[in-house]
Amino acid sequence: MNKKDSTRVWKDLGPAAENGLFDRRAFFKGGSVLAAAITGYTIAKPLQAQTLSDDPWSGSAGTPSGPYETRSRFENDVVRTMTNPNGEPRSQQSRTPHHMLDGTFTPNGLHFVISRSGSPDIDPEQHRLVIHGLVKQPLVFTLESLMRYPMVSRMHFVECGGNSAPMWSPEPLDADVQGLHGYVSCAEWSGVMLSTLLEEAGIDPTAKWLIAEGSDSLALHRSIPLSKALDDAMIALYQNGEKLMPGNGYPMRLLVPGWEGNMNVKWLRRIELLDQPAMSIYEARTYAPILPGGKAYQFYFLQEVKSFITRPSPGLSMNGQGLYEISGVAYSANGRISKVLVSADGGQTWAEAALQEPVLSKAFTRFRIPWQWDGGPAVLQSRAWDEAGHVQPTRSEIVAARGEASRVPSLNGFPSQHYNGPTSWQIDQAGEVKHVYA
Amino acid sequence: MNKKDSTRVWKDLGPAAENGLFDRRAFFKGGSVLAAAITGYTIAKPLQAQTLSDDPWSGSAGTPSGPYETRSRFENDVVRTMTNPNGEPRSQQSRTPHHMLDGTFTPNGLHFVISRSGSPDIDPEQHRLVIHGLVKQPLVFTLESLMRYPMVSRMHFVECGGNSAPMWSPEPLDADVQGLHGYVSCAEWSGVMLSTLLEEAGIDPTAKWLIAEGSDSLALHRSIPLSKALDDAMIALYQNGEKLMPGNGYPMRLLVPGWEGNMNVKWLRRIELLDQPAMSIYEARTYAPILPGGKAYQFYFLQEVKSFITRPSPGLSMNGQGLYEISGVAYSANGRISKVLVSADGGQTWAEAALQEPVLSKAFTRFRIPWQWDGGPAVLQSRAWDEAGHVQPTRSEIVAARGEASRVPSLNGFPSQHYNGPTSWQIDQAGEVKHVYA
Repeated sequence: MNKKDSTRVWKDLGPAAENGLFDRRAFFKGGSVLAAAITGYTIAKPLQAQTLSDDPWSGSAGTPSGPYETRSRFENDVVRTMTNPNGEPRSQQSRTPHHMLDGTFTPNGLHFVISRSGSPDIDPEQHRLVIHGLVKQPLVFTLESLMRYPMVSRMHFVECGGNSAPMWSPEPLDADVQGLHGYVSCAEWSGVMLSTLLEEAGIDPTAKWLIAEGSDSLALHRSIPLSKALDDAMIALYQNGEKLMPGNGYPMRLLVPGWEGNMNVKWLRRIELLDQPAMSIYEARTYAPILPGGKAYQFYFLQEVKSFITRPSPGLSMNGQGLYEISGVAYSANGRISKVLVSADGGQTWAEAALQEPVLSKAFTRFRIPWQWDGGPAVLQSRAWDEAGHVQPTRSEIVAARGEASRVPSLNGFPSQHYNGPTSWQIDQAGEVKHVYA
Repeated sequence: MNKKDSTRVWKDLGPAAENGLFDRRAFFKGGSVLAAAITGYTIAKPLQAQTLSDDPWSGSAGTPSGPYETRSRFENDVVRTMTNPNGEPRSQQSRTPHHMLDGTFTPNGLHFVISRSGSPDIDPEQHRLVIHGLVKQPLVFTLESLMRYPMVSRMHFVECGGNSAPMWSPEPLDADVQGLHGYVSCAEWSGVMLSTLLEEAGIDPTAKWLIAEGSDSLALHRSIPLSKALDDAMIALYQNGEKLMPGNGYPMRLLVPGWEGNMNVKWLRRIELLDQPAMSIYEARTYAPILPGGKAYQFYFLQEVKSFITRPSPGLSMNGQGLYEISGVAYSANGRISKVLVSADGGQTWAEAALQEPVLSKAFTRFRIPWQWDGGPAVLQSRAWDEAGHVQPTRSEIVAARGEASRVPSLNGFPSQHYNGPTSWQIDQAGEVKHVYA
């Protein structure tokens, strides 16, 4: 098919936005329509006879599997980037490499972790969870006893309140999606609804909050409204099918779906019911930044609707013009993602992306849209809506409301939290991808 | 609450079947109803003051996380059991420990693997996929080129045709759920629909089948009808969010959802379109067992509707009477699971289990039902239905149709395939769980 023919078919599909974005129906219609559209922009190469020769690894028997499978040595570079990689006695953060992943959740080896004093080496048989305070009967739970209660399995993201903090910088940082948005991950969590355990203990009518405490050496603790505890909070015991990872709270963590990361208290050992918040350092100071008007931004727990493109993104260069898939993740504490728009011209025109089914509440939703790169400059952006009607603000809107950092900082140490504006990837004619503000 | 009171509440809930099975509505109604029902059968213990002391691991900083998180040392025993653990030059099989897992899919470290000659050490940059035979333009795909096509993410089980083969034994084997049913797993697979690639190559009208070949040293190959290839077959590149594990076909495998495990050709290198099946050893002999009437059972690819209880199960002893959750997995090549019934009296009476949402097509569906064990003998069974109306046969039905093994064999080397009858766990008064026929 010559260039003229392929252009014709491409027009039949109807470009949904300028600069090469296809209508998402190209995707929904399945292979035949799309394949017809892309024939003029060949990705694959015609077969040459020598391609059917044996590769060296086909010449002899391979490696047997072990009792617990590990990755190919060719994947050794797919890792979390770390602050404090030597584990000195202070906080340590590790970021999910979103650009190297696909699908709708994060594998356990690559789930982000922030810990203030490392992962305690907990013996699950000795560990106890206590529920006390404003209850009729304070109770002690072993892991074995928790395993006997009715369980649920739910796919939920966890995001640090400080994720995307580099976006507050007045100048765009030269960072990739892992550096900018690496403190959010998604997993299937299985465990016991907290409401089940609270009902067994018996809730005193004066109880309005609880404080949850971990068994790390700092006994990290956060105040949680009782209404959230009775809504969808869970004592999670399994992460993506197996027991929790040490950095994610083995053998049990609190899960408060969609709320600030460190409210999902890891290595959970105590829940005390109270008639008011306990005002831990996290609600009193860390997550109470001062707004431009002088008031504190406090008791604001939800991680609002957000999205970012993971492919293409910095570090994944383009390899010549032609068809590419633009893909990323969207999520919201307010429920399901209802729509994701993608732009290839810095927000001038938009096309609607396909959402990977099933779209689940308070979970990653992967979006995808085919894109015909003509080899010229482009700026990719995404913007997400949730079922509650919320939409990602523009960067200028959220900066006006919450204040911009007064200096160009490093990837750490930003003054504000909860950035959920868009992210822009600029593609130059050499195919390099770079973080910009647009 | 005394015994009389708790009995009253339990009756209000309505036992759905004999021997202690609750109505699944007890689960759906959430914590409050269930907690009231179980108050007389306390699992948790009242708080004693000393429980609030610090544990040893809370006294000092823990271990920092690494670039790729690994499990707690207390989970080291949660592993696949292996045939041929030393990797001698013959087939090696590793079984998923379903009794140690929860949720709706299998973590990558524990996905079952059967390989005939080990996992080849494939350099993904050098690997090529060729599509040739009855096509208009034979094509070669690199991994980089495949990454540019529109992708999908789908949760699907993969099951060896020989899974559950020990159930053909005339006497029940003393085995656990891993030994009996360990050759089935479920994962989220992300990749490119095969139809997209076939349409780009252009399908010759005479093509009716394809043969798919791996790059392991035996070049394992299977014939697949073209209709399946164009329906929902996928070239999978990611498994549960990260690149495929070596034992599961890194860097790419064919996925034919719901069909016999080894049709999902791993380390995929070639797809040749043909006008008839190639009659590889697998369709000609291995998966063509002789039926009692003398005919061969051939070209029967679907893994039919099946379920088994994972908890309680052998190796997981009961710890005193009271409330337990009965949980397991169900799946079918015919689509979604529509219903799972559970019996606690060896199939005399049945109660409907709750199905974990979302219920997905050709994927594990976790079922759960609360059960009040009175400390007496019990035989647990599950039975699943799929949306196509198929139901698991009884063991006597399937043995009558397909023939029983003529001897008591080991866990390997059974004469038949595709067992999908029920599995029975007998619980004795000491709380031990054992595999029986019932």
